[in-house]
Amino acid sequence: MALGVKAIPFTFVVHVLGIAGLILVLVWTIDFRGGLAWESTNKSLIFNIHPVLMLIGLIIIGGEAIISYKSLPLSKEKKKLVHLVLHAIALILGIIGVYAAFKYHNESSIANLYSLHSWLGIGIIVLYAIQWIYGFLVFFYPGGSGELRSACIPWHVVFGLVVYVLAVGNASLGFLEKLTFLENSGVAKYGSEAFLVNFTAVITILFGAFVVLSVLSQAPAEDDHSYSAI
Amino acid sequence: MALGVKAIPFTFVVHVLGIAGLILVLVWTIDFRGGLAWESTNKSLIFNIHPVLMLIGLIIIGGEAIISYKSLPLSKEKKKLVHLVLHAIALILGIIGVYAAFKYHNESSIANLYSLHSWLGIGIIVLYAIQWIYGFLVFFYPGGSGELRSACIPWHVVFGLVVYVLAVGNASLGFLEKLTFLENSGVAKYGSEAFLVNFTAVITILFGAFVVLSVLSQAPAEDDHSYSAI
Ligand code: HEM
Ligand code: HEM
Repeated sequence: MALGVKAIPFTFVVHVLGIAGLILVLVWTIDFRGGLAWESTNKSLIFNIHPVLMLIGLIIIGGEAIISYKSLPLSKEKKKLVHLVLHAIALILGIIGVYAAFKYHNESSIANLYSLHSWLGIGIIVLYAIQWIYGFLVFFYPGGSGELRSACIPWHVVFGLVVYVLAVGNASLGFLEKLTFLENSGVAKYGSEAFLVNFTAVITILFGAFVVLSVLSQAPAEDDHSYSAI
Repeated sequence: MALGVKAIPFTFVVHVLGIAGLILVLVWTIDFRGGLAWESTNKSLIFNIHPVLMLIGLIIIGGEAIISYKSLPLSKEKKKLVHLVLHAIALILGIIGVYAAFKYHNESSIANLYSLHSWLGIGIIVLYAIQWIYGFLVFFYPGGSGELRSACIPWHVVFGLVVYVLAVGNASLGFLEKLTFLENSGVAKYGSEAFLVNFTAVITILFGAFVVLSVLSQAPAEDDHSYSAI
């Protein structure tokens, strides 16, 4: 199923879409929704931390971690380190982001864990953590035998992509759910905020699609530095 | 990235989850939401056709079409016929299902095409149709040269899976959106209907995940009939 094309152009699109998604989610939460705060009497500002950290963490940094083997002009050992460190950052930001959603709910007396989005969200964080720990043990420290590694690698890739695609889908569920709440309390269905949120979701989905395309395409050869200009 | 295991057990799980999803969506729309109708003064009955046809069509029949090369004890030529006919049925049911959503909106004076779900929905139907027509021309009639076919096949697989995963994600968005509307008009957040709808969405997502796992696993050899008992 691998594609016979070079991954570099796809990884370039990933970077650009990542920057676009980052800007859009900040414009939305800061300009339209009043900003971000960890402590505030305006509890919505606590909620706003949730989409920002989930998008920066699990989606953007997690996506960059996945494509690091395809995008970076480094040796395999260094790329492995980048891969595992970026995924650790993604996971930690994801956990803090989920904590912000719970904090907002608790301080506003809203029920926890009633929605499809929240159920999948918990599942994804748990699977992401399992995938990280398992990968660390087998591929980094103490590290499995050569035989074990090569038996594990396709499952690591497939399971990792499944969890990542679930995360991208769940972020889309979150955008749709939040916008539906806002529309129920008066935000216009065809207004600029609605378009902004929907476009952020579309950019997020495209980002995820280009991460998958990068994974399915060909890594540059280790001595090929033509792409380091990008 | 292919997995070195047989696809048959995965395809078996796909069939079972498909039957479960079918039952759940019918119980929901018929027992909880009053049933299905193409013409009615109770416009909700027109809406109910939408999730039923989308799930049976694009998701379940579409998924079975995708795994037909892995699940059926038939010659390659026959499987190709099953594949293209099932995808045609999936697409037609999908188009009728989307039509039902528009019919409901128009007869109830609700705006069209304001949500992420509806935007992605239109995109998915268009991409699914393009994929079908392109596949028909290259692989069936008139059919490309051997060289063209083998250049196209990985793209056909990747593009087909991307569109299919988008469809599964979009069905989840639909379930979440509809349940959010219902909860806003009084359906309990932890009631049996909420759990039913959320579980239907979870089954749908698992169905999609097992379709992907089937595609990544090994087809049975053409002369291997051990699996025809399943
Ligand atoms: C993959 C990334 C994401 C994960 C894993 C995730 C996870 C979660 C979890 C576990 C909760 C439950 C909190 C509770 O019950 O107290 C939650 C709530 C929420 N999240 Fe996310 N989230 C993600 C991305 C997003 C994004 C991008 C948005 C966009 C605005 C969002 C919007 C919401 C909303 C509106 C709630 C409260 C309603 C509910 O519980 O469903 N989420 N999220
Ligand atoms: C992949 C399968 C699906 C596709 C392609 C799809 C497509 C669409 C489209 C194009 C619309 C817009 C109709 C209009 O604007 O008048 C729509 C509306 C809707 N669909 Fe779906 N749908 C799918 C599955 C589902 C499922 C399983 C549900 C579950 C209940 C659902 C719930 C809704 C709801 C509530 C609306 C009206 C609100 C809105 O426009 O977003 N859909 N769908």
